Amino acid sequence: MELWYSELQTPNLKFSCKVRATLCRLQTTYQELAVLDTFEFGKMLVLDEMVQTTELDEFVYHEMIVHVPLCTHPYPEEVLVIGGGDGGAIREVCKHPSVKRATLVEIDSQVVQASRQFFPRISASLDDPRVNILHADGVEYIRSFSDAFDVVIVDSTEPIGPAESLFQSPFYQSVYRALKQDGLLVAQSESPFVNADLIRSVQERLKAIFPATYLYLASIPTYPSGLWSFSLGTKRYNPLDPQNTFIPRDTRYYSSQIHRGAFSLPRFVSDLTAPDSSPGS
Amino acid sequence: MELWYSELQTPNLKFSCKVRATLCRLQTTYQELAVLDTFEFGKMLVLDEMVQTTELDEFVYHEMIVHVPLCTHPYPEEVLVIGGGDGGAIREVCKHPSVKRATLVEIDSQVVQASRQFFPRISASLDDPRVNILHADGVEYIRSFSDAFDVVIVDSTEPIGPAESLFQSPFYQSVYRALKQDGLLVAQSESPFVNADLIRSVQERLKAIFPATYLYLASIPTYPSGLWSFSLGTKRYNPLDPQNTFIPRDTRYYSSQIHRGAFSLPRFVSDLTAPDSSPGS
Repeated sequence: MELWYSELQTPNLKFSCKVRATLCRLQTTYQELAVLDTFEFGKMLVLDEMVQTTELDEFVYHEMIVHVPLCTHPYPEEVLVIGGGDGGAIREVCKHPSVKRATLVEIDSQVVQASRQFFPRISASLDDPRVNILHADGVEYIRSFSDAFDVVIVDSTEPIGPAESLFQSPFYQSVYRALKQDGLLVAQSESPFVNADLIRSVQERLKAIFPATYLYLASIPTYPSGLWSFSLGTKRYNPLDPQNTFIPRDTRYYSSQIHRGAFSLPRFVSDLTAPDSSPGS
Repeated sequence: MELWYSELQTPNLKFSCKVRATLCRLQTTYQELAVLDTFEFGKMLVLDEMVQTTELDEFVYHEMIVHVPLCTHPYPEEVLVIGGGDGGAIREVCKHPSVKRATLVEIDSQVVQASRQFFPRISASLDDPRVNILHADGVEYIRSFSDAFDVVIVDSTEPIGPAESLFQSPFYQSVYRALKQDGLLVAQSESPFVNADLIRSVQERLKAIFPATYLYLASIPTYPSGLWSFSLGTKRYNPLDPQNTFIPRDTRYYSSQIHRGAFSLPRFVSDLTAPDSSPGS
């Protein structure tokens, strides 16, 4: 028997991979959660019928969402990750010796539980003594902070369902307030090929709040189109001039060279960050 | 009725897109050729069950395989494209005012014919007076030249079937001889996620022939993994220090910034270009 997982990445585009076994499939309070053992990508976490992470390519997303902001900041001590229940971002944050506390706010405890059970290499640092795990709504959680974090990382699912409000201005305003005076925010912001309008909106919303806003890219085969974007809002430091003297060495994607290279945008992508950009322009 | 095109990108990974209509499907002397009208990518050229080009994302591949070498060279006059029967590479070559002659050597005349019929925007420059189209085997063709071309572009299909010998050392040696004393070669060299061994081989073969060899990347959603590589062998000019004062402006991917950024390789990719790299190292 052949078993295939298929995902409609858009109504007209389907991604399918052959499955060895279904390791877990359940409905949490927030979403449908499945863990599949695939031939191509190893174990794969699927939330609400969308691939979130796989053993084969998780390193790209996790290294790039973490090391770009943490190497931009000269000495990140207080880091907050919103979403990211698989623990992959926390694992990368914990590589930084400057970090005193890494707080993970994941709304869905069953994501953390599934990652601990099925993805030991991704969830490896969840028990690091510097890590504090909370199961709460990130939007609510961050409201009570001001001048508290060096870096906030938004490692969310798609902007539909539980993560919708993580792409809205009120949330970004809360993040701005929760950041220290030289803090910075990074948020995953989907694919420039598939979600151009979303990127444009996120960039505009961040520009209205942060003194400087950037977009950078990484290649992630299991995400729609294979090209993924990250939006960065910063109060002081310029990500093109990274300040941290610590550079993680045990990486497979991130390097000082790729840190800068990731901000070299194809023309159709840099157009999305232009102040006057609008659909069709 | 729903019609879907499905492609096994690997034995365990399938790419599918919804099809409005099959515009053409035939067996040529060399391969199966199909033109599909898809909802997601517009018209799509499929050769031997592999997507070659689509209206939506062809600009990435064609701009990147052409402008990187042509902007590296200070004044490219004689350009040879091997393969590339759709005409997309030739269209980009013709944007360069320095070019005196652009020769297209495509083994399969029916690819050129299909492109003229179904992809008018891709094949737009095939009738440029500087363009010379030949239907011949590129490996045979190039053997009769020495000191003749400024840039040779290998815009081939996968290294199985008609294009196999375009990835071998004897062919690269012929290209080296056919290039002028300051000429350079670019060849598409597949995906670092899916075809790491091939990239390693191509890099090693080029290194044995050219004084300097490089690898650069571009994001192409309809190709396996979405990340694609190009291998460059050069006799004199350094692609990181492009010499051409002409920079094409009517591009959607290429820019001076992306020219340099494309050579910023993720660590797992730069490992493929290291002299001591081998599977598992």
